[in-house]
Amino acid sequence: MLFDLDGTLLDSVYQHVLAWKEALASAGIDLSIWRIHRRIGMSGGLFLRALVRETGRELTTAEADQLRERHETGYRSRLGEVRPLPGAQDLLQVLTNAGVPWAIATSGSQATAGASLEVLDLPPEVPVITRDHVAYAKPNPDLFLAAAEALGRPITESFVVGDSVWDMLASQRAHALGIGVLSGGYGREELETAGAYRVYEDPRDLLAHIDELGIRMQL
Amino acid sequence: MLFDLDGTLLDSVYQHVLAWKEALASAGIDLSIWRIHRRIGMSGGLFLRALVRETGRELTTAEADQLRERHETGYRSRLGEVRPLPGAQDLLQVLTNAGVPWAIATSGSQATAGASLEVLDLPPEVPVITRDHVAYAKPNPDLFLAAAEALGRPITESFVVGDSVWDMLASQRAHALGIGVLSGGYGREELETAGAYRVYEDPRDLLAHIDELGIRMQL
Repeated sequence: MLFDLDGTLLDSVYQHVLAWKEALASAGIDLSIWRIHRRIGMSGGLFLRALVRETGRELTTAEADQLRERHETGYRSRLGEVRPLPGAQDLLQVLTNAGVPWAIATSGSQATAGASLEVLDLPPEVPVITRDHVAYAKPNPDLFLAAAEALGRPITESFVVGDSVWDMLASQRAHALGIGVLSGGYGREELETAGAYRVYEDPRDLLAHIDELGIRMQL
Repeated sequence: MLFDLDGTLLDSVYQHVLAWKEALASAGIDLSIWRIHRRIGMSGGLFLRALVRETGRELTTAEADQLRERHETGYRSRLGEVRPLPGAQDLLQVLTNAGVPWAIATSGSQATAGASLEVLDLPPEVPVITRDHVAYAKPNPDLFLAAAEALGRPITESFVVGDSVWDMLASQRAHALGIGVLSGGYGREELETAGAYRVYEDPRDLLAHIDELGIRMQL
C-alpha cells in the first residue's frame, strides 16, 4: 500500500496552499487560491511551469528556486498547526500488524517531507520516497514505482492511496490501483474521474472499509 | 442575476475556512480542514449542528455564539489578504451597463458581509441580502428569494451564481437556474451533481462565456 503524504495521512494541504499563496504574493504574482489548491501534490516544477503559462509571467531559475524556498519557509512556519488526519496512525498500525507492506511517496522535497513526517511519528524503517529520489514527481509514475521497489513488491499488485488527482493519474500510469481520500479537499467525482477505484473520506473511513479492498485482517 | 459573495465574487473562502478552524480549535474541537471547507456557504446554524452530530460534542447556545464570534474575529483579522476574484468587478460593471439587474445574497452575517463588501467597492444601491434579513440561510431558498424580490424580478427568471453546493441546492429549491464557479474550491462535478446548469472557472471565465447564458449585451 503506497501512501501519499499531504492530505492523505496529514491534514496539511491548506497550510501548503497558504504558504504558496504567500510566496507567490511576495514575488508580485497574484493567483486565486483555488488554483493553487488544485495543484498541491503535483511536481513543484510542473506547478511553476503551469503558473508561468497561466499568468504569462516568465520565471528565471533563480526566481523559481526562491519561490520554492519561500514556500518551504512558509510551510515550516505553519507546521505547528499540522495534525495527522483521523485514523492515519491507526490505519498504518493495522497494516503493519497484518503484515501488509506499506510506504510513503510524496512530491515534496526531503526537507519539507521530513518535517511533516515527524508529526506522524513513523517507525524509522518505513520507506519514504521524496522528489529528491526520482527524476520526475507526480503525475509521473516514478515516485510510486520507486516506493513499490523499496518494498520489493510488484507495482501492479499495489494500491496507491492519495487525495489529489495527481496521485490518481500517477497511479494509473504506474498500473497500480488508485484509492482516493477526500481529506485533501478534492471532490469524490474528481477523484473518480481521474481513475480512483474507490474513494473514502479519510484514513479512518478507509480503515473502516478495508475489507472492500480485499485486504484480509487476522480476526 | 443573484450572486453569492464568498468564493464567487471574493477570494475569501480559505480565510473563512481557517478562521473557523481556529475558532473550533480554541474550543477544543478538532475537525479536519476539508470538512470545514465543504460547509462554507451554508447557514452557520446548520454548520454548527452538523458539527455536533459529527463530533458527538454538544454545544450550548452560548458556546455556539462564542464560536460564531471567534470565527468573525478571525475572518476580520484576515481581511487584508482578501481580494476580489479575477473579473468580478468587470462582470458586475458589464451587467450594470447592459441593464441586467443583479444582487448579492450571502449566508454570512451583516457584519462579516459588510466588511467583505468594502473589498468589492460596490455602488451603494446594490441590494445585499444577508442572513440577518431572512429566517433561514442556504441551502434554504430564502436568501435568493429575497434578493429577487429586492430587484422586483421573478425568481424563476433569475440566475443564481455560486461556488458551493449550498448555492446550487438553494437555487434548485428557489426554482432559479444555478451557475457554478470553481473559484471557491469545489470541483466541477460536485457543482453539476448539485444542479449547476453551467460551471465556469471564476467571474472572468463567466464573463467570457456570458452569451452561453442567453444574456444579450449591446454590441
